[in-house]
Formats: sequence, structure tokens, C-alpha cells
Amino acid sequence: MSFSVAVAGASGYAGGELLRLLANHPEFEVRTVTANTNAGQPLLAVHPHLRSYGDLVLSETTTAALNGHDIVFLALPHGKSGVITETLDPETLVVDCGADHRLTNEADWAKFYGGDFFGAWPYGLPELLIENHAQQRSQLVGVKRIAVPGCNVTAISLGLAPGLRAGVIQPVDLVAVLAVGPSGAGKSLRTNLLASEILGSASAYAVGGTHRHNPEIVQNLSAAAGTKVTVSFTPVLIPAARGILATSTARLAAGISAHDVRSAWVNAYADEPFVHVLPEGQFPSMSDVIGANTALIGIAVDEAADRVVTVTAIDNLVKGTAGAAIQSANIALGLPETLGLPLNGLAP
Amino acid sequence: MSFSVAVAGASGYAGGELLRLLANHPEFEVRTVTANTNAGQPLLAVHPHLRSYGDLVLSETTTAALNGHDIVFLALPHGKSGVITETLDPETLVVDCGADHRLTNEADWAKFYGGDFFGAWPYGLPELLIENHAQQRSQLVGVKRIAVPGCNVTAISLGLAPGLRAGVIQPVDLVAVLAVGPSGAGKSLRTNLLASEILGSASAYAVGGTHRHNPEIVQNLSAAAGTKVTVSFTPVLIPAARGILATSTARLAAGISAHDVRSAWVNAYADEPFVHVLPEGQFPSMSDVIGANTALIGIAVDEAADRVVTVTAIDNLVKGTAGAAIQSANIALGLPETLGLPLNGLAP
Amino acid sequence: MSFSVAVAGASGYAGGELLRLLANHPEFEVRTVTANTNAGQPLLAVHPHLRSYGDLVLSETTTAALNGHDIVFLALPHGKSGVITETLDPETLVVDCGADHRLTNEADWAKFYGGDFFGAWPYGLPELLIENHAQQRSQLVGVKRIAVPGCNVTAISLGLAPGLRAGVIQPVDLVAVLAVGPSGAGKSLRTNLLASEILGSASAYAVGGTHRHNPEIVQNLSAAAGTKVTVSFTPVLIPAARGILATSTARLAAGISAHDVRSAWVNAYADEPFVHVLPEGQFPSMSDVIGANTALIGIAVDEAADRVVTVTAIDNLVKGTAGAAIQSANIALGLPETLGLPLNGLAP
Amino acid sequence: MSFSVAVAGASGYAGGELLRLLANHPEFEVRTVTANTNAGQPLLAVHPHLRSYGDLVLSETTTAALNGHDIVFLALPHGKSGVITETLDPETLVVDCGADHRLTNEADWAKFYGGDFFGAWPYGLPELLIENHAQQRSQLVGVKRIAVPGCNVTAISLGLAPGLRAGVIQPVDLVAVLAVGPSGAGKSLRTNLLASEILGSASAYAVGGTHRHNPEIVQNLSAAAGTKVTVSFTPVLIPAARGILATSTARLAAGISAHDVRSAWVNAYADEPFVHVLPEGQFPSMSDVIGANTALIGIAVDEAADRVVTVTAIDNLVKGTAGAAIQSANIALGLPETLGLPLNGLAP
Repeated sequence: MSFSVAVAGASGYAGGELLRLLANHPEFEVRTVTANTNAGQPLLAVHPHLRSYGDLVLSETTTAALNGHDIVFLALPHGKSGVITETLDPETLVVDCGADHRLTNEADWAKFYGGDFFGAWPYGLPELLIENHAQQRSQLVGVKRIAVPGCNVTAISLGLAPGLRAGVIQPVDLVAVLAVGPSGAGKSLRTNLLASEILGSASAYAVGGTHRHNPEIVQNLSAAAGTKVTVSFTPVLIPAARGILATSTARLAAGISAHDVRSAWVNAYADEPFVHVLPEGQFPSMSDVIGANTALIGIAVDEAADRVVTVTAIDNLVKGTAGAAIQSANIALGLPETLGLPLNGLAP
Repeated sequence: MSFSVAVAGASGYAGGELLRLLANHPEFEVRTVTANTNAGQPLLAVHPHLRSYGDLVLSETTTAALNGHDIVFLALPHGKSGVITETLDPETLVVDCGADHRLTNEADWAKFYGGDFFGAWPYGLPELLIENHAQQRSQLVGVKRIAVPGCNVTAISLGLAPGLRAGVIQPVDLVAVLAVGPSGAGKSLRTNLLASEILGSASAYAVGGTHRHNPEIVQNLSAAAGTKVTVSFTPVLIPAARGILATSTARLAAGISAHDVRSAWVNAYADEPFVHVLPEGQFPSMSDVIGANTALIGIAVDEAADRVVTVTAIDNLVKGTAGAAIQSANIALGLPETLGLPLNGLAP
Repeated sequence: MSFSVAVAGASGYAGGELLRLLANHPEFEVRTVTANTNAGQPLLAVHPHLRSYGDLVLSETTTAALNGHDIVFLALPHGKSGVITETLDPETLVVDCGADHRLTNEADWAKFYGGDFFGAWPYGLPELLIENHAQQRSQLVGVKRIAVPGCNVTAISLGLAPGLRAGVIQPVDLVAVLAVGPSGAGKSLRTNLLASEILGSASAYAVGGTHRHNPEIVQNLSAAAGTKVTVSFTPVLIPAARGILATSTARLAAGISAHDVRSAWVNAYADEPFVHVLPEGQFPSMSDVIGANTALIGIAVDEAADRVVTVTAIDNLVKGTAGAAIQSANIALGLPETLGLPLNGLAP
Repeated sequence: MSFSVAVAGASGYAGGELLRLLANHPEFEVRTVTANTNAGQPLLAVHPHLRSYGDLVLSETTTAALNGHDIVFLALPHGKSGVITETLDPETLVVDCGADHRLTNEADWAKFYGGDFFGAWPYGLPELLIENHAQQRSQLVGVKRIAVPGCNVTAISLGLAPGLRAGVIQPVDLVAVLAVGPSGAGKSLRTNLLASEILGSASAYAVGGTHRHNPEIVQNLSAAAGTKVTVSFTPVLIPAARGILATSTARLAAGISAHDVRSAWVNAYADEPFVHVLPEGQFPSMSDVIGANTALIGIAVDEAADRVVTVTAIDNLVKGTAGAAIQSANIALGLPETLGLPLNGLAP
């Protein structure tokens, strides 16, 4: 048994990472890679690190190029996935790494993205574990459409959802500040993404709740809390190409002990292959998860501040994008969830 | 007129930065540099970048070596400044870059540092502007002892104090997450400070309120608020040698407009030469202030989260340590406050 | 069929990388990991990125701990491998990532390392392809002892040997300058390896032919040339944790065309799975090979300078150490040479 | 006495660095800053680190804007300086940081740059010290036109010229490999200059003698040697925003001792304020000179390889561009050569 695969938008960082991971997947076989301005070039000209794809050439991102595969991974700019998916075979498993099918609320889409609204698909964050919610793992089985979460959203959701669901933290005044690498912004040619600007520096952006991932964060955390949450999210660009280190904090709920707090996370992820809660007093480094589909979470209670602080490390391109896509595809197709996915990070 | 200067602990990063800045000060003349294990070596052997000090040799840190100067800057490990100062001439201006004389509360000292308590000195953060408080700028004039604030403390205090003092933000549930460079930890030989560990990574430490700067942050912000504050502080080590980018957030006080918020900070720093509030929608990068005694602050109101977010950039070794020391010494001696201090950062 | 494996010196960077790669090897099963000061600790306490080794504990590096395995990988400081190997079962495959068994000439050992000389073992650089020389690939088959080359040596040897062997470059005035990451120096607690020293900087070391890898470079290149070569080698430490980018240059031999030059390298590596010569005008980036057992080589002829310039990228911890060890072990055991080894790099 | 200054091309990195240095120059007063696409913007919008220029606005780069100043610094793309200078007042001191007036040979210009050739100006590398050559320091006095050298050219010329002039190294088979930061390439929006591409990596470019600085290197070194040299030059881009670390090597001349070698450099730079030869066994780090107009040089003789190796560190934007421009302007105007220029680097 083997599934044929097409990757649309293969020339970007997310597309490249999908290909890097797919090369090690025993049941997926990449047959087609598509691009926009790079169409016609050998894949190696764009991704010289992907030596195992020696003979593949990028073709145009068209319906004809994508149809006829068992699985299509989309790594396209927002607005593009929604349009092309309407032309794809409904029996093809389409996994969208973009934003077009993440938000359930059309007003959120209009405010943060704009343009046509395409509606939400089953959500590719199997560990979110929200009761009575369509995004539960079991509900990914057999689906033909999957929306992969935003990378920042994954880091914050994994870091705060268990506490909200268990009621050990309060749903208001959540604060998340994320150290993020520039690869999350893709290959866009923008001055603030130049190495000269980022080396030796750090800068916050989309400060004050204007980042497009905001409504998706609220959507996930509100579902976990069972009530609408308020959350302040600030991404800080740092000089490391990949990775997210999310410091997510919340007010301790009344009468909750430090032991109760820890139990909420430990219980939530006890059986998860890819989400690990670290022992007391330990906190993850970003490099622990680089290249891996793993999320590591450390938890502390600050008694003086009356707040819980969680630190979550993921690789934005793996657990934050391409790994989540493959993990969700594995579930949808009835394969072992961990098939082909790396657990160990590349450090140092 | 010219003041003779000794720098104790000159072989470390803070000591080196004091020397770099002092070389450009028209009224200060460095005559003596002392060290511990490096005593006997030429200064250039330890700081090959300080080419202007070609003939200076490091001597032992003793009372005899330090006495007889107009000014002594101490860049010693905590616990050392308190002891040696007791032996120094009371007419010498002693500026302590260490922690020994920052905390007013002995219980805080005992809990976070331990060992003998030396009592608080006038506090070298002239811009803190706390009414009816001993740390006001005017009260630095003529003093003979100055305690330089902790670098993280400076970044958070500058970022939140104006809002607390003006009452536009609430004194509870303050949250500050700081991207910090490893130079703040000095030249300590620890595995987690090795380049291989820090490059390509980021890691939180002292999570949950255990960092030694915590009581000093609470001390400053409580003074500004006029009531005891609660604050969660998490430093995140990033791969940039210098600099702090502090994302400090607070709950909006009831009935306060975005305009009121901005005014609090703009008014507080209107006449400050070294603390600049950026125009609406602009936020600082760490590299904007590298090498400079400048603090840049950007402010946003997140209406959905009902919180104010401030982003403050300083150089931990300049405005966070050596620059603050010199600025405070200028005030104490009746010199122009900005004398010899750089305003422009080194970017890119 | 499956081979039991012990890794000695598992707590260092080379040991950790061996474990990362071995986790993906279908025929090797890690049963024992040993360390020195870290003995007694869970492996995860030292290498939190190696999540797949959840239950392994580091034991002392003793003969008893290592004997009884099919394969022992040694990642020990120089001088240690030679001693312990004398106590190991002669039927065990011992692969030494250290320097103890690389040099054939005792005087070189005495000059650059010192202490007891242990003699050379079969050399684990299968692609060196030196005719009539003991290091040829076929001669690794069935051996029980393998010396893994030094990482810098591998980069320079792969970059220059084909031209020397083919006679298209001259054996004198070879010059190699290598950009290297600090992980090559291991976890040693030295001031010059601190992040604060390396970030935003670059520094040459062992300038003037004093690096321990020098005699090994001369040994390999002289074998390829069929005559004693002269080579100037300078490593330059840069702020990237892993990787080597070697710029190796040589005088063009008389009457040789640019086409002849390129052919020498293309022919030498035509059938190599892990060494790829890039098309004309293309040169590798270090990040193309991070995490991979791949070496990429770009070649140019500078007509005006009458020199050939080759640029070779490897990951010092993979093709430069742990990957080479496993590749050589595969050959020794009659397994497919590429088994369990990554070909694709992790970029960006 | 005070000189009025205009900086053309002020929005780029070289322009920004000119302004940073000029802010500390006691005799130069910046009145006009010009740009191309950024004209009309406040300077602070483009260079938020230059806080001392609060009220300056970028105007268009026109003859009218530039004429009427005592000094005009040009930081323009090549081809632009030549054109605009023809329209500037002949009595204005024009200092060109671009390439238009560096090469003496029109054929070199045609081959490496192309377009109109504007002829060579007095050359702004006072330390080159080439006998009987128009570029000697004394010949900068009183000139009205100065060409600032290329940054890589400065590093290599300072590193090799003394040995060539003294005859202790041979003029053929010179090899220079430079670790360079991306700021040397300016703010160009190119994929290979993105932070995601450069972080964690290193890459050689213009391999094989194709870099535009090649003919200028040959021009300088041939003048020093008194005969046409052959030199192989390879720049390697590393993840540090600023700085050049040049490893320049040459064949030892026959019968020359290590002492003779060292003397050649020590004598050449004995009286230079900005070029320092380090003691035997010491080599510079790039960070030693960041922000400074200083060049540090370490020298070793590799007896086995029969070659001399010099390691030269400069800041590409200071001694490599803006500092050299100001130093040369000081000489031209009869001011102290060191006026307003920093000697100490910013480290760590």
C-alpha cells in the first residue's frame, strides 16, 4: 500500500519542509511538486538541501497537476487554497497548510484576512482534545479535508488548553509572548526579514492583537475553556531561523494547588506521542525540537504573581506546519499516527 | 576639572563596557582597573577591543587600589560590593553595578540572594520619576553612593511605571516576558551559556518568579503604583550577545481610552534625553539601542484583550548597567546628565 | 538480524549525534550509553532533544559496560579510546570517533597530540578513493576496528583529493580556510566558546599550521597526490552551531583546462551516494547539509589567479563524525552503505 | 571652524553608518541627507537607531541638494557617483564610498562593472603606504576628491601589502578567504540575504575570481609588490551582521625568517593610530573592531606549509567604508586624522 502525493507551493519553506519529511514516510510517495514563479525549475535549484529528490521538476500549480493523487498538501498563500480546492476531486485528501479553512467565524475571517470566506475544515491539531468539539482526533479519521493550524496558534493552544479545560487557570488575562524565527514569515522579500536586520536583534510585531493568528488562538482556547477567553499575543522575531518558544501565562483559578496545575497538563498529554510535559523545574529549549514533530512543555506556578507560566517549544515548520499536516493525514487515512515523523530534535 | 576613576571588576562584560564608555567621557579619567583571577594581565589581554587603554594593567581588587580616586565603579559579583565599600573613603563616589544595594527590604534580600544585607543606596534610574520616593532624580544630586538597577528591572520599570503612576493600567496581573542576550549572565563558564547551546535556540529560565530581579521589579512598580503590584516576569535567552527587548503587558484600567494610555508614557518621558516613546504603530528593535544609553518604548492597546502592551528596548550593558552608572554619576557630580553617553545605536 | 550497540561518551555532542542517527537505523539497536561525570543520569537530562530514548540511563565508561555488544562507538577525548580498546573483545566492531587511531606516523602523533601512540586503524572515509591505499572502501569490509576522520580533515580531503589524484592541481601551496561551528569543539567550558564571545563575531584559531588535524590532512592529501603535499589550513569559528564550509584552493597544474578540472571531481564522485558535485556556477551553503550525511562540492577555476577553488559543505557532527562512523560500520558489516543515514539537510 | 556636510544615499547601511560616526565628529555638521525611494521620510523612519538626528528629513539626491556644502559624502550604487559628481562644485570635498573612482584601469572597470568609466581619484586608504604611488597619505592632503576603497579590498590590502612591499612574501599564489557579514551587501531585497537563509549557515559567493573587488585588490597589491600579483579571493557570508575577518596567506620568500616576516608588518604600521599588529600568537576576533575604525592584524608563519598567514579584522561599515571616508576627509582638510573616529570596538 502506498499513497501518491502532490505538494502545491513546494518552493517555499513550508513546502520544502513537507518534502523533507515526506522523503522519510514509508507510505507516501511524492509524485508532483508545483510552484508559481519557480515552475519549470528543478526542485534542487530551489531546495539544494533536498538531495533525495534529484529528478523532480516544479510544475505550475494547476488543477490538472494536482488531481489524480491520493493526497494533496497545499502550502499556498492565504486565499489561494480555498479557490483551488473547489476544483479538486472530492475523494482526494486535501491538507491545507494555509489559513483559508481554519476559522469558523466569517467575521473573524473578514477582519483579519479579507476576501472570500471558504469555511472551516476539520482541524489538524489532534492533541487539542476539546470535548464535544469537531476537532477531536477521532473526528479526523476518514475525512477528506484538513486545515493545519497556524504555527503560533499550535504553540499557544498546546500550552494553555489543558489548564483551561481542567479549570485550573482563568479564561481571562491570558498572555502569550512568543520568540519566533523568521522562517515563519516565509521567503517574502521584505527589509525587516533581511539577515542584517535580524542578526544581533529582536523585534516585536503585530503588537496589540493585530496578528492574523489572533482569532484562531481565541477560537481554540475558548473551545477549551467552554467560554470566550481574552488573550494578549505578541510574537517577537529572534535570530534563529526556525522554532517557536512560547511563554504563555494565566491567572491561577481560585483554590487550585500547584499539584492540581501540573496534573491538568500531565493528564491531558499522558498518551500523546508528540507532546511531552517536562518534569518539575525543567523547561524546554527551542533547539530541543528543531526538525522534530515534538512539542515540549514546562510548567511553573508563580505564587507571588498568582499566575501559571507554561513554556512550549515547537518547530514552526514541523509540529507547527508540515509535521502536523502529515500527522493529521496519517490519522485521516487510518495509518499509525506517528508514521514517518521524527521525534528527536537536531541539537546542538 | 577632571575626575579620577577606578573600575573594580574590569575584566568582566560590565567592567569592559564601563571602560568603553568612560573612554569617551570628557571629565572622567580612568586611572585604575582591578580584577580577580586576571590581576597582573594587561587590560588588552582580556579586552582586546579596548584599544585606547594600551598601557593599563589589571591590579588586584583591594581597598588600597580603589581608594584615592574621585569615583569608583564596582562591577563585582553580588556580595562583594557590600563588603569592600565599607572600607572605602566615604567622600569617594561609589557606583555599584551589582545587586548589593538595590533592595530596601531585608527579607527580599535574604530570599533571593542571601548572606549579609547591606541596605539600599540611592537608586540609579533617574527616569523612574516616582513622586515622594527617594529614587527621584533630584535626590541623586550630591550623593556619594549609588546603586545601579538590574538590567531586566530597568527594561520593565521603564515600560510599565508611567502607566501605573498615571493609573491607566491596573497594578495586578502585570506580565513581562523579556528577550535577553547572554552577556547579561557575564563570562561564567556554564554549559547553557556555550555558543553551541544558544545558537539556533531560545530558552526561558528562572520561570515562575524565581529570578533575582523579581523583588526589585516589584519594589519599583509598587512605588510607581502606590500599592503592591503582582507581576509575572520571564526572561528568554536568545542568540544575540547584547540587548533586552521587554514585552510588558497590563490590564487596562476601567474607562481609560487609548489616548489616555499613550499620554501617560509620552508625558512621563517628554523631557528625557535617553527614554523615547515611539509614534503610534511603531515598536523598537533591540539593535536600535545597541551600544547606546537609550531606551525606546512602543505602546499598543489591545482592545479585545483589554490590555496594554509596551515593548521596551535597551542595551543591557549600557542603559541596563554601565551607561546608567555613568548617567547617575554625572547627576551626582552636578555634570550635565548626558555627558559622554551615546544616544545613537549601532545598527545593523 | 539486528546489531546491539553501545555508545561511549554519549553525553557529548558527537555522542548525542550518534544517538540521533542510530535511532533511525533499522539494524542497529542502542542498548548501552556511557559517560564520565554524567554517569547515573537519565540520557534525557543531558540530551533533552533525544525523546526516543526515554528510558535509557548513562552508565560509567568501563570495559564491562561496553563488552558484549556487536558494535561499540567511541566518542571519547583523545587518549581515552586507545586505552579502553585494548580491553575490548577483538570480535566487537569498534568505531572510534576520536583521534587515537587516525595517524599512521608516530612522530606526527607525538608532535600534535602526545602520550601513548596506538597505531592507525582502517580509515572511515569511504569516498577518499586512494588507489593502492589501505583506506579504500573495499578494505573496510569485514574489519573490526575503524578510525573516523577528523571533521575538518573530511571537508578538505573531499574537496582536494580528486584533483590531486588526477593531477589537475599541484601538490604544493594548497590552502584551506574553513568556516566552522563551535560544536566541533565539544562542550568544553572555555571562555572563547561562550555565546557572548561568538555571536556577532568570527575568529581564526590554530593559525599557522598548529591545529591537530594538520598531519591528518597532509596524510590524506599526500596519499591522493602520490607525493608529500604542503597545505596551509586555517579554521575560522563562526556563529552557527554546526557545519563546516571549506574553501580549499590549489594551483592549477600546467596545461589543464577548466573542463579537465571539473571532470576530475565529477568522475571521482559519480557513484557516491553522499558526495555530490554541484553544477558549474553553483556552490553549497552550510545549511544545505545540516543534519545530513551529505557532502556538497562546488568547483571554480580562477584563470587570473591560476588556481582552482573548491567549496565543500558538510555537517561536522554527521559526515564529519557520527554519520561517517555509521556509514563505515555499515560497510564493515556488509550492510547497504546508506542504511539509516539521512541524505537531505535541514534548511532553512 | 566647522564644516557643513551632506550625505547622499543616507538611507542605506553605509549612509547610516556615516551619520552615526558624523554625529560624534566635532568639526563636521550634517545639514543634508538625501535618498532615492525614501526621500520625503524623516531620517528616523529609516534609521530608528540614529536618535540624535531627530529633525532631519531625507530629500531627493540632486545637485541642488548637495551643492553648497563643504563636504559631500556619497553612498550611492556604482555608476551613480560618477554622474552626479560631474555636476558638483569643484571646490567641494567629495568623498565617494562607491566604486566609481577606485580603478585606474578602464579595462578592469569595463569587465567588472561596465558602463561609463569615470577615472580614479586619490585613494582613501592612508595606511597603504605604497612608495612612489599617488595613494600615499601625504597626497590626500588638500585634495577635493577621494575614492573610498572597497571593504574587502581594505582587509586584504592591509593584511598583505607590508609583506609584499618588504619582499618577505612572494607576489604569486596569494590566497584570501574572508568571513563577511551581510551588511556589506546593503539592503538589497534578495532571497540569499534573508535571515532564514543566512542564520545557521555560511556560503561562499563570487567564487573563482568573479567578485568586483578583485581588480582593486590586484591594483593595490601589485603596487605594493612592485610587480603584478596573482591572488585568489573568496568571500564567505556568515551569520554576523557586520565585520570582515580576512585570512590572507602567501608563500614565504626564500631565506626569510619568521622574525623578518613579523618585522615587515610591525614596521609598516608602527605609527598608525588605526592599524594594530597583535603580539605573536594572538589573532583578532571580528567583534574586537565592531563599530571602530580599527584594523587588527595577527601574523603567523607556517613552516611546514612554507606560507605566511595573516588574519585581519575590520568593521566593513567603519574602517571598510564610513570610517575610512571620514579619516580621509580629515586628512584632506588638514584636521587631525583621528578626529571623531572611534578606536574601541563594541564587544561582546
